[in-house]
Amino acid sequence: MSTSPVRPVPAGEIERWDLEADVVVAGFGIAGVSAAIGAAESGADVLVLERTGGGGGAAALSGGIVYLGGGTRLQKACGFDDTPEQMKTFLAAALGPGVDEDKLDVYCQGSVDHFEWLEACGVPYKESFWSQPGWECPVDDSLMYSGGENAAPFATLVDPAPRGHLAQVPMPRNGDQAAGHVLMTTLIAKAADLGVRVESDVRVQRLVVDETGRVVGIVATRFGAPLTVRARGGVVLATGSFAYNDEMMQAHAPRLYKRPAATVEEHDGRGIAMAQALGARLAHMDACEVAFFCDPQLIARGILVNGRGQRYVTEDTYPGRIGQLTMYQNDNQAFLVIDEQAYEEGMATPTSSPQLRHQPTWVCGTVSELESEMGLPAGTLVSTVELYNRHAESGADPVLGKKAEWVRPLRSPIAAIDLRGMTGGFTLGGLQTSVDSEVLHVDGDPIPGLYAAGRCTSGLSAWGYCSGISLGDGSFFGRRAGMRAAAK
Amino acid sequence: MSTSPVRPVPAGEIERWDLEADVVVAGFGIAGVSAAIGAAESGADVLVLERTGGGGGAAALSGGIVYLGGGTRLQKACGFDDTPEQMKTFLAAALGPGVDEDKLDVYCQGSVDHFEWLEACGVPYKESFWSQPGWECPVDDSLMYSGGENAAPFATLVDPAPRGHLAQVPMPRNGDQAAGHVLMTTLIAKAADLGVRVESDVRVQRLVVDETGRVVGIVATRFGAPLTVRARGGVVLATGSFAYNDEMMQAHAPRLYKRPAATVEEHDGRGIAMAQALGARLAHMDACEVAFFCDPQLIARGILVNGRGQRYVTEDTYPGRIGQLTMYQNDNQAFLVIDEQAYEEGMATPTSSPQLRHQPTWVCGTVSELESEMGLPAGTLVSTVELYNRHAESGADPVLGKKAEWVRPLRSPIAAIDLRGMTGGFTLGGLQTSVDSEVLHVDGDPIPGLYAAGRCTSGLSAWGYCSGISLGDGSFFGRRAGMRAAAK
Repeated sequence: MSTSPVRPVPAGEIERWDLEADVVVAGFGIAGVSAAIGAAESGADVLVLERTGGGGGAAALSGGIVYLGGGTRLQKACGFDDTPEQMKTFLAAALGPGVDEDKLDVYCQGSVDHFEWLEACGVPYKESFWSQPGWECPVDDSLMYSGGENAAPFATLVDPAPRGHLAQVPMPRNGDQAAGHVLMTTLIAKAADLGVRVESDVRVQRLVVDETGRVVGIVATRFGAPLTVRARGGVVLATGSFAYNDEMMQAHAPRLYKRPAATVEEHDGRGIAMAQALGARLAHMDACEVAFFCDPQLIARGILVNGRGQRYVTEDTYPGRIGQLTMYQNDNQAFLVIDEQAYEEGMATPTSSPQLRHQPTWVCGTVSELESEMGLPAGTLVSTVELYNRHAESGADPVLGKKAEWVRPLRSPIAAIDLRGMTGGFTLGGLQTSVDSEVLHVDGDPIPGLYAAGRCTSGLSAWGYCSGISLGDGSFFGRRAGMRAAAK
Repeated sequence: MSTSPVRPVPAGEIERWDLEADVVVAGFGIAGVSAAIGAAESGADVLVLERTGGGGGAAALSGGIVYLGGGTRLQKACGFDDTPEQMKTFLAAALGPGVDEDKLDVYCQGSVDHFEWLEACGVPYKESFWSQPGWECPVDDSLMYSGGENAAPFATLVDPAPRGHLAQVPMPRNGDQAAGHVLMTTLIAKAADLGVRVESDVRVQRLVVDETGRVVGIVATRFGAPLTVRARGGVVLATGSFAYNDEMMQAHAPRLYKRPAATVEEHDGRGIAMAQALGARLAHMDACEVAFFCDPQLIARGILVNGRGQRYVTEDTYPGRIGQLTMYQNDNQAFLVIDEQAYEEGMATPTSSPQLRHQPTWVCGTVSELESEMGLPAGTLVSTVELYNRHAESGADPVLGKKAEWVRPLRSPIAAIDLRGMTGGFTLGGLQTSVDSEVLHVDGDPIPGLYAAGRCTSGLSAWGYCSGISLGDGSFFGRRAGMRAAAK
């Protein structure tokens, strides 16, 4: 075989296939398990190659939110109206510019059905809604806002509906039983029920291509030894993002270089490079989900200012939106300014993120003193607070549109929390795929036999993000990848 | 031959070579002509394939600034000290995050030599410095600031030096004789002197690859008929950006979709896709140069505010930096607020951009009235102007660091120019190349026989930009591509 580590191997060079299946899935996170189930339900013999000793990937460690809507059973049970059209209008605004309209159409139209499929796979949901700001839900509710749908500027664009669907967790919670864990253990068990085989400790290295250009297998390694795997129907790449590949991060997403969060070290971009070596198209490689390391219960009760002492985002919106605007538009410079009463209120509210409840960095008697302590340019914070308070007296925020329930004048004593550089996240760019999860060549045609889903692809997100989009497009387009590969 | 329009053609499928040379260069803009000269000076037989009826590309229509420094003859003659280290410190800050340190090193260390080479090619320079803010120089001076070196925040990071080197233009100027035209006609004449052959009206379509993976030629079309071109030593891609490729713009740089500026329609990404089909690496595909369509002589004399009435950039800096911050960080929302005296002063100053001297959109007696007319949130502009004026009374701008010479309180009557959406530009991302302009495969190795330079590559710019970087890295790494290809 050729010595180059990522280039495709001609099928003629394979002397012996060690393993074989109709559909071979690389990676056993959310996209991989959904592909495996989708293919097995379509009658295919399925083999999963997983790099670690087990399965679950980043999904099993996540908050477990799947972004779904358009009128799911759970939305209705919780009393919310939604339509695929409203869902699409919101997502096109929140995830753009540059969203793949075709993918977004298919996803919004298929969302109700996809929720039914998750339930049919055994994922439990509780008919209850969590109404508070937060990264995750601290109790066992199963529906929440997860993208700023009910905050400015989106709330005036389209009627808001919560679309974050979380698996019900056993109470009282412990670390192993977050919604992502419930979701993944349920789906992995479903795959096992369907006869899906899993080979662990296997690192995929190169794709195997026949003389027509069709992908017919994978060369991998297990404990350093080569392993050849034949795919009679197709290969599904579900290998995750490139957040831990330093070279790719420098070349594509330098702002998040060495700042991964909510991801796992296995996300090294390997699957992307393997397909690139075949001429695959990429999309939106610079886009990132950006976590903001502060509890939303505190953020909503204060004002966020940048390095010039200016507000830049409505504080009661989705914290991932705050993270993106902080990192991309405000050079990672953020301070939360909050008064004593608001801080104490926030700290007394249940949260899923106690580790994000920071102590004040500075506490002062006047805003002017605070501004000076913080090292902000003279007059900037005073000016910002004066304007905010003037409108807050009447419960309004015409500058950024924070909802009245969170608007109250800031009073003495006043504090600030230093949140500079308090961001991290994972990458959203990757292989460009069709609505059927075929990997596209730069000439626009699908690469025969090659499918991909999850964070090794560019999915629903172009620039923006909502919690649940990765588990959403990973499971939705993963399932479609498996079904499509099985049909071949 | 295979039917797919962009995939490589196996050399064995070529029945007859219509043309042949040691080094074949695709594109006759700045990178192409520099590659051609570099190869010819190294003794190679050189053939250029140019898509249009002539040569020049975007460079011939440009302002003709080449970003050079480190102590060039022209910098010294104009009385400026500079070193390669200062140049690198500035560029690493201005063009980052994510700059290619190796390329930047080679460029800064080779900059004095590169200027001598341009002079040796016959490009004329006048020993005079233009000190005013502007996109270009309106007279025949040959040195200017072109990246915000003497403005905040860079001026305090490293001693500023002007590095925009412009070919001297005949006076009085006319449209055909801008510095870019002088530069390109001179270099094209030099290439002709060296015996470089040029085939016009030739569209490159696919690379030809031998059984070892080496690029050995190009398949092109001329007036629809196929044309096969053999490259004995190497192929240099110098085909420009993808600003006019709608699919690529949507996938990579959606903010600039349908907003090209300072580019030409031939920039369709073809060369990038041809190399991607061979497994080439990409970098920084989302990065764009962003022109801001307002005369810097007006901008420096007013204050720029975003859609929340907040200042966001020092107004006396490089206008391309203003463009990038407006588009990427402020959602393309910009207004110039300026008083009558400052506006009239600006309009009375020589400019190279008379078409960017807009009439005021609104003129009012008070800032409060103006804010209302502009539709800004109540109190925002009043607050911003109050703070600006308070500091301006003492000639200071602690918020953004505008130089004292441009700081003066804004007085009644006061006007604003609506500059929302007044941005456009071209893409900076592309093929990832080595310091010797070899196109890199995703496995990290050079693709044998394939070189690239100019805006089909990711050059010196990662995120930021300075005027002269494209002609700078295009000519510098173009020349190196030609020399390297000739050496094979």
